[in-house]
Amino acid sequence: MRLEKFFNPKSVAIIGASRVKNKVGYEILKSMIEGGYEGEIFPVNHKAEEIEGLKCYPNLEAIGKTPDLAIIVVPAKFVAETIKDCAKVQTKAVVIITAGFKEVGKEGEKLEKEIIKLSKQAGINIIGPNCLGLIVPANKLNASFGGQLPANGSISYISQSGALLAAILDMANTNGIGFSKLISIGNKADIDELDIIKELNDDKDTKVIAGYLESINNGNEFASQAEQISHNKPILLIKSGATAAGAKAASSHTGSLAGGETAYECVFERAGIIRCNSIKQQLDFATAFANQPLPKGNSVAVITNAGGPGIMAADAIEQQGLVFAKLSEETISKLAENLPKAANLYNPIDVLGDALADRYEFALDTVLDDPNVNAVLILLTPQSMTEPAATAKAIVKISQKKPSKPILVSMLGAQKVEEGIKILTEGKVPHYDSSDNAVETIKAITNYVGWKARPKRIVRLFAVNRRKVENIIERHLRHKTREISEAESKEILEAYGFVTPKGTIATTAEQAVSTAEQLGYPVVMKIWSPDILHKSDVGGVRVGINNARQVRDAFDLMMYRIPKKQPNANILGVLVQQMCKSGTEVILGMNRDKSFGPLMMFGMGGIMVEVLKDVSFHLAPLTGREAKQMLINTRTYKILQGVRGKEAVDIDAIAEGLQRLSQLVTEFPQIQEIDINPYVVGREGTIPIAVDARISVEKV
Amino acid sequence: MRLEKFFNPKSVAIIGASRVKNKVGYEILKSMIEGGYEGEIFPVNHKAEEIEGLKCYPNLEAIGKTPDLAIIVVPAKFVAETIKDCAKVQTKAVVIITAGFKEVGKEGEKLEKEIIKLSKQAGINIIGPNCLGLIVPANKLNASFGGQLPANGSISYISQSGALLAAILDMANTNGIGFSKLISIGNKADIDELDIIKELNDDKDTKVIAGYLESINNGNEFASQAEQISHNKPILLIKSGATAAGAKAASSHTGSLAGGETAYECVFERAGIIRCNSIKQQLDFATAFANQPLPKGNSVAVITNAGGPGIMAADAIEQQGLVFAKLSEETISKLAENLPKAANLYNPIDVLGDALADRYEFALDTVLDDPNVNAVLILLTPQSMTEPAATAKAIVKISQKKPSKPILVSMLGAQKVEEGIKILTEGKVPHYDSSDNAVETIKAITNYVGWKARPKRIVRLFAVNRRKVENIIERHLRHKTREISEAESKEILEAYGFVTPKGTIATTAEQAVSTAEQLGYPVVMKIWSPDILHKSDVGGVRVGINNARQVRDAFDLMMYRIPKKQPNANILGVLVQQMCKSGTEVILGMNRDKSFGPLMMFGMGGIMVEVLKDVSFHLAPLTGREAKQMLINTRTYKILQGVRGKEAVDIDAIAEGLQRLSQLVTEFPQIQEIDINPYVVGREGTIPIAVDARISVEKV
Repeated sequence: MRLEKFFNPKSVAIIGASRVKNKVGYEILKSMIEGGYEGEIFPVNHKAEEIEGLKCYPNLEAIGKTPDLAIIVVPAKFVAETIKDCAKVQTKAVVIITAGFKEVGKEGEKLEKEIIKLSKQAGINIIGPNCLGLIVPANKLNASFGGQLPANGSISYISQSGALLAAILDMANTNGIGFSKLISIGNKADIDELDIIKELNDDKDTKVIAGYLESINNGNEFASQAEQISHNKPILLIKSGATAAGAKAASSHTGSLAGGETAYECVFERAGIIRCNSIKQQLDFATAFANQPLPKGNSVAVITNAGGPGIMAADAIEQQGLVFAKLSEETISKLAENLPKAANLYNPIDVLGDALADRYEFALDTVLDDPNVNAVLILLTPQSMTEPAATAKAIVKISQKKPSKPILVSMLGAQKVEEGIKILTEGKVPHYDSSDNAVETIKAITNYVGWKARPKRIVRLFAVNRRKVENIIERHLRHKTREISEAESKEILEAYGFVTPKGTIATTAEQAVSTAEQLGYPVVMKIWSPDILHKSDVGGVRVGINNARQVRDAFDLMMYRIPKKQPNANILGVLVQQMCKSGTEVILGMNRDKSFGPLMMFGMGGIMVEVLKDVSFHLAPLTGREAKQMLINTRTYKILQGVRGKEAVDIDAIAEGLQRLSQLVTEFPQIQEIDINPYVVGREGTIPIAVDARISVEKV
Repeated sequence: MRLEKFFNPKSVAIIGASRVKNKVGYEILKSMIEGGYEGEIFPVNHKAEEIEGLKCYPNLEAIGKTPDLAIIVVPAKFVAETIKDCAKVQTKAVVIITAGFKEVGKEGEKLEKEIIKLSKQAGINIIGPNCLGLIVPANKLNASFGGQLPANGSISYISQSGALLAAILDMANTNGIGFSKLISIGNKADIDELDIIKELNDDKDTKVIAGYLESINNGNEFASQAEQISHNKPILLIKSGATAAGAKAASSHTGSLAGGETAYECVFERAGIIRCNSIKQQLDFATAFANQPLPKGNSVAVITNAGGPGIMAADAIEQQGLVFAKLSEETISKLAENLPKAANLYNPIDVLGDALADRYEFALDTVLDDPNVNAVLILLTPQSMTEPAATAKAIVKISQKKPSKPILVSMLGAQKVEEGIKILTEGKVPHYDSSDNAVETIKAITNYVGWKARPKRIVRLFAVNRRKVENIIERHLRHKTREISEAESKEILEAYGFVTPKGTIATTAEQAVSTAEQLGYPVVMKIWSPDILHKSDVGGVRVGINNARQVRDAFDLMMYRIPKKQPNANILGVLVQQMCKSGTEVILGMNRDKSFGPLMMFGMGGIMVEVLKDVSFHLAPLTGREAKQMLINTRTYKILQGVRGKEAVDIDAIAEGLQRLSQLVTEFPQIQEIDINPYVVGREGTIPIAVDARISVEKV
């Protein structure tokens, strides 16, 4: 384990330990001592002989031993020197608390680079700089200035904001939430989120990985690793700075529709990462994941002692797209035998306002046996006879007796239910301050279960003419031409198995007529010039041409008008092309995200994309299932299935197109953007046509 | 004030007072005594001489005085008798706590009706039955068994669930939230939600009206009254039973049927009612409304001592559609002079991790003067130097010094910020447990401000031929015919200023041809029979008929084929009709909600309504602004404005159509449903055509 010395050091040096209260160098030492750390602590400060009863050393060497872990709190300008000291004594694990590096600008960035260089040379690993420190409750290690050591538990937390970690610690300490590791990663100059997540994946004491991130260092690697890890342990992340991404210059349709946020959404979805909106929500989710089993399905039973909250929970369950469990005959008759006559035996089970703990216990015990129930939500309002504490004890008892289905509780109120909530927390039954939050949690867990149950991802590989594409791209890169012409874009697509409309470039009107007659009417005519990118803007596109006269007119008008509009354009002729008869227009596209790689896009064409922005995204490479899911994820998918007498289109053919495109952009990282617009699809068995295409490339 | 005797009684009789602890009759008496009620309390129980030191009376008459208020706790079967006793001593205000009425079925419903009859005869007003009671902190009146008397405040709460009220009480008592009145309305057999809301509107001690409702008794009246009241005081409601599952739970619980969700949404929106999803959210909103001024706009400044939470708040502000305030030059330079160099002076203002109370105070003081700022959100994370309590004091101080803009605070953490939160609450600065919740609250307040600022609702009245419609409807009602034929439906629409396609019914092929020639090709032909409602199902509709031969063919084919399909249909001929050339198809409609009246619908036609269900609703009568808003509220409104070279349609003409329809259904409550589908609209200046219409009527 690479981070063993961080998480379980036998000795810790605090370089920059201080005697002055409130100073970070003092607070960390105090945290270590008060946390009851059982290894050796070496305060290092050449101005002091002793701090808080511990012998203080003038420098690391003076200790005469190799501390497993060094915590650096000295001012930024002395940090480099301190790293050299660590190298001398062979301390390989270092946490740099000190701020004043990359986050303060150029000067700090230089300092940070120097430190990383030094540490790399010496084989030292660094957490930080500019962080709050590191906490491992099981080892009584509190090398932080964030607050007191929390209870031991199975949630580990990584935070890019130290202040947020301090707040979490305070919440955890007050609410009895236990943690395995808490790591403030600061500027993550060396060890970053992925290093830690990988480590936590191997850590037997960590059941749930949670974190707050503002950025991700290595997008592509993060995406693929996180996907592996999610199968093993749930990853719950807050990713902030979501909307602030801002507009991004992109020349393609796909690019302009995919904001910075889209890539994160795609990565999180593919990797099974559960995204959270607030610390509170994250802890709500995490405690359920840490303490309760995963449900086998999405049906929920509710037990309540009051109608109102039961109805509200039912609303929330339906709104979240969960299933309100239909109880079995057996459950209902068992409840009928043992509950008062006025009780509601159907979901939500109302054990009535005068219910003592025993009724809750019986109802829970019974409902857990119902095969139609996957999870149970228990609600309690403190009425005059209600026994919150005894009820909590009963719930904990049953949850231990029948531990195969998740049980969540919401006791409404405050002081009257305080004791009950405490008992639940200690008994590892998660408690929520409203049924809304509990239902949201069930939804998150259910989604995770669904994600885990996905079939194995198998990416189909098509036989393609890779060499041809290579040639076209290389030539463009040599000439530093970013945009590939329509004709060559189509050649690229054809090399990857796409069908494009037949056609030839005509240089005279008569040639155009003979081409048209060969292709058969109707035809499309497009001006052909490397200098004209937006053909329709100059009147360079005519569709639905039906006879020779129209061909001649269109040819001559283009030749007469376009040179007036764009006098410098080198006009090579007019493309006369087969016109796709009927069919539904869709868009296939790709936009390469700087950190996460190719983002595939599918969109409904025409008005749907213009008005509704009805598009969906997915990271490449795509499996067949994912490609199809992209279609299903659009709001107007039904149109593809056929509505109002309109025939269904060949959905599998579109999905195949997406997979071929996915293969193309995966094999050619030089491709930055692709739009196939329109991609015209017909009924089942017909071959879709890539009518127009744009590809742009860049050197990588 | 009709409820004066309920809210401020000089004497209270508790009929069914008990000496047995835990019994409701004891708990209420105890609540009254412990609340410190200063008027006279008369326990009534023929089995006791004295309870808790108070003289006990065998019956009401034995008191020898008229109690202002009677609380009835006797078993259901004795309640009618007790009402008679109240009548005898002239007690006009009665709260029936006792359960066992409508909510338990037929028998209970009978009892309830009897009681209401008796009380109406005697001029008695009743709250309940089946309720928790009534609490008025200012008058030290706690006539409930819900918990101890909360602090006095300006929020009043009405609850259809007693248990929920008990939970609210507990939350309020723990978190120091003050109330003006808390009323459990139970089965609301006499006094209902609207009676109380009207009363609270006149109540100078109530600033905010909040409530939990499962049903609304008198929809129409409620809608119009609530709209008036909302202008004066914000109304915050939880309406449960929203979804199908919730509605089912509602009917099995209270015996009251939950209304259609759409109607509630329309009513709440029109009446400016702020809908809440949970008690917690409702109290979050209510405390801001109660204690802070309304903002003048939707721009928010954030002050924080940590970057992470600042970014998360910025995300939330953008996601909620609020504006992240751009600070003025003046503000920025003032902040620059007084904050440390590393501080972020732009929104979010980061006063840094080592900020003491003074920096918060200065930043808040400064930012409140900025004309670009309408509301301020303050975030605090408990870091080592942070002073939550002193910071809270500083915030309260500034909020009192500059009380014109709302200030909301979120202190992350728990125990470390507990004291700070308490100071804020006492200082009437609302606190939120996450910035998300605070931002949601700002959004709710801003929406309310926007609603209040709506222009006055003026419903335009068109000159119409009311008499004609009256005749058609009356004839149908006489013949008990629910569905009005297409021809007469169109006559009705024409009487209200709609244009329908010209056409005549032809009985022979030649007649059809001559009609077609008069109208001009193309024409539409439709089979004409009172017995055929769905013409196209039997092949009875042909569009785009272009010449005499086609007219003859269509006529003869219909006459040959349709009698085979529907042998008993009385076929009167074939309607030959003008065909609307180009245009966009939309749908206008109305569906009359049982409790709230006519719900107008606008929808995009064709695939949009089939696939996307792209429709919007609004209660009639409609103003011009509301009619237009209905168009804007559809997702594909842009299509009407013109996209992709397609011309814009005459939006005002559609809005006028909706207003005319609104007038029709308002003037004729007999009309249950209308569909104008399609309503074909062209570019500006053209007249839309009601191509097809269906109207159904019922006796009212």
